[in-house]
Amino acid sequence: MRDYSAFFSGDVPSFLRSPVRDIFAKVDLSAICSFAGGYPAAVTFPTEAIKRLSSDVLDKYGPKALQYGATQGVPELRQAIADRYGVPVSRVQITTSSQQGIDVCSRVMLDPGDIVLAKNPVYLGALQSFRSYRAEVRPIAASSIPAAASGLRAKFIYVIPDFNNPSGETMTLSEREELVSFAREQDLLIVEDSPYRELRYSGEAVPTLYSMAPERTLHLGSFSKILAPGFRLGWIIGPEALLEKIYICKQALDLCPPVFDQYIAAEYISSGELDRNLVKTIAEYRRRRDRMLGLLERYMPEGTFWTRPEGGLFLFLTLPEGIDTVALYDEALSAGVAYVAGSFFYTDGSHRNTMRLNFSFIDEAKMEPGIRLLADLISKAR
Amino acid sequence: MRDYSAFFSGDVPSFLRSPVRDIFAKVDLSAICSFAGGYPAAVTFPTEAIKRLSSDVLDKYGPKALQYGATQGVPELRQAIADRYGVPVSRVQITTSSQQGIDVCSRVMLDPGDIVLAKNPVYLGALQSFRSYRAEVRPIAASSIPAAASGLRAKFIYVIPDFNNPSGETMTLSEREELVSFAREQDLLIVEDSPYRELRYSGEAVPTLYSMAPERTLHLGSFSKILAPGFRLGWIIGPEALLEKIYICKQALDLCPPVFDQYIAAEYISSGELDRNLVKTIAEYRRRRDRMLGLLERYMPEGTFWTRPEGGLFLFLTLPEGIDTVALYDEALSAGVAYVAGSFFYTDGSHRNTMRLNFSFIDEAKMEPGIRLLADLISKAR
Repeated sequence: MRDYSAFFSGDVPSFLRSPVRDIFAKVDLSAICSFAGGYPAAVTFPTEAIKRLSSDVLDKYGPKALQYGATQGVPELRQAIADRYGVPVSRVQITTSSQQGIDVCSRVMLDPGDIVLAKNPVYLGALQSFRSYRAEVRPIAASSIPAAASGLRAKFIYVIPDFNNPSGETMTLSEREELVSFAREQDLLIVEDSPYRELRYSGEAVPTLYSMAPERTLHLGSFSKILAPGFRLGWIIGPEALLEKIYICKQALDLCPPVFDQYIAAEYISSGELDRNLVKTIAEYRRRRDRMLGLLERYMPEGTFWTRPEGGLFLFLTLPEGIDTVALYDEALSAGVAYVAGSFFYTDGSHRNTMRLNFSFIDEAKMEPGIRLLADLISKAR
Repeated sequence: MRDYSAFFSGDVPSFLRSPVRDIFAKVDLSAICSFAGGYPAAVTFPTEAIKRLSSDVLDKYGPKALQYGATQGVPELRQAIADRYGVPVSRVQITTSSQQGIDVCSRVMLDPGDIVLAKNPVYLGALQSFRSYRAEVRPIAASSIPAAASGLRAKFIYVIPDFNNPSGETMTLSEREELVSFAREQDLLIVEDSPYRELRYSGEAVPTLYSMAPERTLHLGSFSKILAPGFRLGWIIGPEALLEKIYICKQALDLCPPVFDQYIAAEYISSGELDRNLVKTIAEYRRRRDRMLGLLERYMPEGTFWTRPEGGLFLFLTLPEGIDTVALYDEALSAGVAYVAGSFFYTDGSHRNTMRLNFSFIDEAKMEPGIRLLADLISKAR
């Protein structure tokens, strides 16, 4: 096969294969106890509603539902998002997935050598996007922002404040206030990635960063966890002057988000179906989370700690120092259990004694045997 | 409103607003005789089939149709494309629109200052994409490829060989052979954009560039004109080693194409519905094309020339030297007729005496009054 490398852009060597997707390719995860996935549970999909709405949308909107649409998104969906979250419609851009939301923010803001500040551990899809533009991702905690004199330029802070992927943690109000004043001091934008915010199982909602700093925040939402990921729909809420550039960029990216899917999503919201389904989804995930927490309590050896997420799809385990979850992985697979090593999510690859566990996608019948297998592995590795 | 320009990447000043989309915003085109759009006719949409297939897909595939899917596209759709076009499935990547196909080729190959060679006049969405990466688009005809010594690097040739948007022209076999040997000589890749290829109304099909040079061609297909643009689905056929980079890039762009829509498209092909609908679509567009050609023949003043497309959605008018279709545009709108000035499609903005006319989207009842209005304008402007 010929070598095409002379044709590739300077960005290509920085493209990062997802280690998660590579893990998935390695083994048939459905045959073992896998906590590795990040998928929502199929039982939460409103299949019957989607079937009905697909047909309704074609009756109601006719060919408009199948034609090209506005680059910003169809007006009905933008309005539904604006109403739901209490923002002006001019501040809503629909995206072809919230991953595209991350990508388009990167594309519009990042040059090679720019800095993104992020709160470790960081969502892998965001690391992939930032690095693909040759930006450097630095942990916000460790970092004092580089002085302008250094020639480096930090553009924005990236964070999932609610039920972080992978850690499951939620930023408190005072942490958010601190982050916002830091952003103001340093004149940084904030990319608030918020795919899980509607999935809260306990505790009280904390205000969004967007609500605290609407002039410097791009808030990314997603339909993947409240409707279905197969729709690839998300949204950005942000200042009009930033959305204007994102809009022009998106013309060249894909002209407009999927139109038929957008009308289904709009009807899904306005019919009240989203809220009805959300009640069921939250009950399902709360039960799963509580089950996982109970099993960890019961089986995990001393010296192992974990987060207690108030929502989302993940929790994060910290094992005794010296256990390396990357090195342990093949043994885990042979034993019949899978996870994602936590160090993949750290900007510097550290924290090799951590792992991400998903509780939304695993068969419930596999939770107990899976946690026992993990606990045995950890006990032996100590 | 605050100024965010310090946050923008170096690419942003090269983002090009679509002058076509700006024209659309200027006036209610449905109130006048508009040849400006590039949309397919709503009567060609297989609305009933889509309604039935939406429901069938949910019955047949269940939650799989709503879950995340493979980045390369769902296997059923990749296989359907591979079978239809006689290529190995490993050479098929599904894209979230063929505009994304163009964009991802640009993203993987272009650095600022790189050169794309294109055949004038050039599809605007491609110009937008190439320029957004700060590449320079040069006309292939005028150009001898810059010597390596000049430090400039031409990466690929971009062309719509079948029924070009905007010109409606089709490259002959010998033109294709010439282009392919030129690409071989100069070691250039070819991006063959092919959204209209299935819409042939007369004449004989000419082999694709991909079939003539499979190791250096990325062939872009689209569902927008054979199913419906609201689905935002396309595909790339090309060498595995190129698709591998596109695949990794696409993980960061949007993870995967819309899954529900992909299953509908796969069933649309495998059920034979695509071929049945294509027969009707071709008959409809052939009639419209013939009507347009007849009207031009009847009304256009001497010294006006036009292309006679064998397929696609557009034809291209060349008016007497000295008439400026950009300058004439407001007068045309006031008179009640719209077009897109041809110079927008030229890499150097030349050919100001040309215009693109669409025959797929305009109300048939408006064709005759529209062409008469245009003919009057041109006669007066001479």
